[in-house]
Amino acid sequence: MLLRPIAQVESSLRAREDAPRQGDEGAPDAWVVFDASVRDALADVGVGDELILITWFDRADRDVQKVHPRGDTSRPSTGVFSTRSPDRPNPLGLHRVTVLAREELRLQVRNLEALDGTPIVDVKPVLGDITER
Amino acid sequence: MLLRPIAQVESSLRAREDAPRQGDEGAPDAWVVFDASVRDALADVGVGDELILITWFDRADRDVQKVHPRGDTSRPSTGVFSTRSPDRPNPLGLHRVTVLAREELRLQVRNLEALDGTPIVDVKPVLGDITER
Repeated sequence: MLLRPIAQVESSLRAREDAPRQGDEGAPDAWVVFDASVRDALADVGVGDELILITWFDRADRDVQKVHPRGDTSRPSTGVFSTRSPDRPNPLGLHRVTVLAREELRLQVRNLEALDGTPIVDVKPVLGDITER
Repeated sequence: MLLRPIAQVESSLRAREDAPRQGDEGAPDAWVVFDASVRDALADVGVGDELILITWFDRADRDVQKVHPRGDTSRPSTGVFSTRSPDRPNPLGLHRVTVLAREELRLQVRNLEALDGTPIVDVKPVLGDITER
């Protein structure tokens, strides 16, 4: 099961230490730059759309199965399937964003907590229920 | 970027024609059977948990970039990044489910609209906001 990147993040977040722990602690606006090969798939995305971006945390440790909440080693460790840790067997991330601007293959989005250069592997609309088809 | 399956769906849904078009049209309860290699990652998942399962639609057509809404060819086609079509460049699916029962590496879940045998590649908790870390 081979993923191919369809887009890449352009952001001022450059290292994991810079990333806010929760999306509401001030993720910056960022750009998402799509590959020309997915132009048709992107055709109907426009300003104001709410999207789920699925990222690939390319700097994650895939061997980690337990983490300490907020990195606090005095607290008991938790299985990563009960957390949003980027360190996990398949390091996928879910990000709900709003499209602020579109320039051909580039989308400016609000509230994307992902490091500069992070690959994006899928884009889905937010519908009534986030997981609805 | 290579995904490995961490679990597999056991469901009475066996073909795409059987699948309801919307999650609320009656997705059956199903079982998710995890690989023993991710036992630690699953350690803190229990009955009543609300989870996001990320599936890999192994029967999808990855070359499709436009689809007709609800398969109706009289309606204009839409770029797949604005739809939940399983046919898309990286055929990932998002499914919000509730855990009904756990037996070691097996979870019974409510409301999983995925075909029997579908690989699962990640599990995340539903937090205040579905995409929150």
